[in-house]
Amino acid sequence: MGPKSAQRLALHILKRSESEVQTLAQSILDAKKQVGLCKECFHLSATPVCEICRNPNRNKNILCVVQDSRDVIALEKTREYGGKYHVLGGVISPMDGIGPEQLNIQSLVKRVSQEGIKEVILAISPSVEGETTTLYVGQLLKPFTKVTRIAFGLPMGGDLEYADEVTLARALEGRRELD
Amino acid sequence: MGPKSAQRLALHILKRSESEVQTLAQSILDAKKQVGLCKECFHLSATPVCEICRNPNRNKNILCVVQDSRDVIALEKTREYGGKYHVLGGVISPMDGIGPEQLNIQSLVKRVSQEGIKEVILAISPSVEGETTTLYVGQLLKPFTKVTRIAFGLPMGGDLEYADEVTLARALEGRRELD
Repeated sequence: MGPKSAQRLALHILKRSESEVQTLAQSILDAKKQVGLCKECFHLSATPVCEICRNPNRNKNILCVVQDSRDVIALEKTREYGGKYHVLGGVISPMDGIGPEQLNIQSLVKRVSQEGIKEVILAISPSVEGETTTLYVGQLLKPFTKVTRIAFGLPMGGDLEYADEVTLARALEGRRELD
Repeated sequence: MGPKSAQRLALHILKRSESEVQTLAQSILDAKKQVGLCKECFHLSATPVCEICRNPNRNKNILCVVQDSRDVIALEKTREYGGKYHVLGGVISPMDGIGPEQLNIQSLVKRVSQEGIKEVILAISPSVEGETTTLYVGQLLKPFTKVTRIAFGLPMGGDLEYADEVTLARALEGRRELD
């Protein structure tokens, strides 16, 4: 939480009655106690296996690999994805002491090699660490399944003129045939 | 030119000596007189055929179609593209009275059908008018050559969490197999 959010919370608390603040504090404690990680995909969940993993209407042959639970929430908002997820819990970052063993990578390889998954979509943000993680995980999974990654290019509503050079270069490089 | 740029120019002029302002005014007149449009690609040019079209090292089998000259400048900055261009001079926008006949589309079809071009890349910004133009031009050119479009997706350095839903959906839809 950044300083602005912290200030907002502090001012909110001071404006409320003591009983309201007690309810809030209790809710925070309850959330911490009740919410853990799904034992299949590592998304935040109040139950041992999360709602997405338990949903029989989700396509279990396709797995979307993301950095953390916020990305699952962002992807769910698009309503475009009907498969399941696997949350890595971060990206490989030697500078911060985060190697592959600190992430949920072993469990991912196990899932992919044992569950007959047909496609793994790597949906990891395009930072230096993100790229490293994408390539590392991709190499590990390729022997077992088809591995794809999300597209990089011009954001919607974006103007060519205002796109940075790397984005434009990626948009050109990633061009595809018109339907 | 917007109001801020106009004000900046006005203040700049008032600060300078009269002779400096005369030089500036003359330069503006000269620019207007000397710079026209390349008769091949319609990019801004001080010569009848622009530097890019005259450059024998540019690949003449590949054509990148853009909305206006600013996009040529933006794409040239990436140093990733070695082909030639075709500037439409705008996008189809019935609300503004701009139909296909107001744009450099006929000349594009002529170039593509006569010059043996192997690929046309449509690099038009993803607005409603831009999409209409992309689809319209694409249909016209398909009988003659391979037609591709630039990729839409996550901009470089962009975080999944902060991408809008349409961009994320396009990034998912446009996923490609990992090399």
